Amino acid sequence: MSLLVVGSVALDSLETPFGRREEVLGGSASYFSTCASFFGPTRVVAVVGEDFPEEHLAFLSSRGADLAGLVRQPGRTFRWKGRYDFDLNTAQTLDTQLNVLATFKPALPAAWRDTEFVFLGNIDPDLQQSVLDQVGKPRFVACDTMNFWIDSKRASLLETLKRVDLLFVNDAEARQLAGEHNVIKAAKTILGFGPRAVVVKRGEYGALFFSGSEVFAASAYPLLDVFDPTGAGDSFAGGFMGYVARCGRMEPDVLRRAIVVGSVVASFAVEQFSLDRLRTLTAAEIRARYAEARQLAHFDDLEPDLFAPGR
Amino acid sequence: MSLLVVGSVALDSLETPFGRREEVLGGSASYFSTCASFFGPTRVVAVVGEDFPEEHLAFLSSRGADLAGLVRQPGRTFRWKGRYDFDLNTAQTLDTQLNVLATFKPALPAAWRDTEFVFLGNIDPDLQQSVLDQVGKPRFVACDTMNFWIDSKRASLLETLKRVDLLFVNDAEARQLAGEHNVIKAAKTILGFGPRAVVVKRGEYGALFFSGSEVFAASAYPLLDVFDPTGAGDSFAGGFMGYVARCGRMEPDVLRRAIVVGSVVASFAVEQFSLDRLRTLTAAEIRARYAEARQLAHFDDLEPDLFAPGR
Repeated sequence: MSLLVVGSVALDSLETPFGRREEVLGGSASYFSTCASFFGPTRVVAVVGEDFPEEHLAFLSSRGADLAGLVRQPGRTFRWKGRYDFDLNTAQTLDTQLNVLATFKPALPAAWRDTEFVFLGNIDPDLQQSVLDQVGKPRFVACDTMNFWIDSKRASLLETLKRVDLLFVNDAEARQLAGEHNVIKAAKTILGFGPRAVVVKRGEYGALFFSGSEVFAASAYPLLDVFDPTGAGDSFAGGFMGYVARCGRMEPDVLRRAIVVGSVVASFAVEQFSLDRLRTLTAAEIRARYAEARQLAHFDDLEPDLFAPGR
Repeated sequence: MSLLVVGSVALDSLETPFGRREEVLGGSASYFSTCASFFGPTRVVAVVGEDFPEEHLAFLSSRGADLAGLVRQPGRTFRWKGRYDFDLNTAQTLDTQLNVLATFKPALPAAWRDTEFVFLGNIDPDLQQSVLDQVGKPRFVACDTMNFWIDSKRASLLETLKRVDLLFVNDAEARQLAGEHNVIKAAKTILGFGPRAVVVKRGEYGALFFSGSEVFAASAYPLLDVFDPTGAGDSFAGGFMGYVARCGRMEPDVLRRAIVVGSVVASFAVEQFSLDRLRTLTAAEIRARYAEARQLAHFDDLEPDLFAPGR
């Protein structure tokens, strides 16, 4: 199997109620590839500046990231600075410095044209399409986006959506993209735009999956301590796509398990700053928490002859 | 089995984005007993005024409500007027007229002293305790409350909690009662106040159940059209307690199914104004939607030999 991600590799500065960190490893491609690595290697398409620490590249490589598609360009690396208050569901962006990301043009190594599984991280939908132009006939394409692109590049985003199998969005993005308040109706509208499936992420509440008439609701793992929510969505996508690529199948039962895997991996990612928890995370821990998630959601069929007479 | 509810019987006036209704049947005891009636009869302790329409009492009776504990007093019936905006999760109270409820002193028929299952609706915790004083040795007591009592009668509410088996609260009430933002920690704190179990209702997101080290997460049935959320919590409690009383057991597996039953019954209740949908609801519809809820939440175990080598 072959899995490719296009996205950001960043230096994040974070403030949370629990502390702060300056210029730590971040970016959608970093979280994605590290989380997918539990299931297999990832081809990374991204850009960094001259100032990007070699140790971060060494770490990503050690986690099976193939960096043949990561270019180092003159200038500074993309930087994001954000703050979370006690409601850890929403980030407040304090500063964004695009730097080398401003002129990023994804260029895939020719050998990657055979890629089977593709994740289009949250970048300009024009760039997402240019990546798809450079892969031959992928088996499964998933894509992320955000309010900024929904608002400013809607037409291009709708073109991307015609070419993807699955879209990851959060509640607010789903509502904005569909122009519909009810999230169930919003998801159905989005399915009409092209994707075969939509995953609506709802933070601490879990995720909903829609495909055709199929609906799956996954509860989030109930965490006592959310430390740093940065990268949760990309960790979710990384676990999801890593698992799907490893299975090599896209049947509904696989996608349901993939959502739980993504949710579990993301639940670890937010336990510490940056990718720190992912550095120590083991497959055994993922498997154990997946089993807990099964237990968390389990209930049996109703008994027969249960209702009051005449009802 | 015997099930008792103490709560309000009200005349509600409602405004939603979908229309309005004046002086329709409402109140916690009305919703509760009608929803519990799918599983068996309910003993109703409540008060109405001279103006309360006989047809509503006839309806409640037809649904197995034993009205021997419902008194008709001089004066007007309790009235509540509320509005919902497009975010149907939160009601805006426009007017509350306590009327006969202001001097309500629950008095149980002597024959009801043997009651096994008790639901203390959202009333003054002093009155909740006076009801418990009037039942001998109930097998299972559940209780509802609200921000007003948490704020204004905290000491009395904590006394009530020492005497109940299960508390129903929503997210915000759990946080307020526990003085703790994280809802998981809040639930654990509340368990320390006395109840053996806590159900945290999260509106469109479903419900969490806590008891000892046990946690259960139930997703809400994904509704395309929420019409009138009034009574959703009491409908949930009615389905829950009706089912538990019918089973006559309080083991974890029963309580899990009870939460799904409550969630399913509540999902019907909000489809039309007042108790209108409950008037036509059948046991077969409840059973069918319960089966859908099973399908909605289902996912399988992970495959063995799944992870990448060395992880």
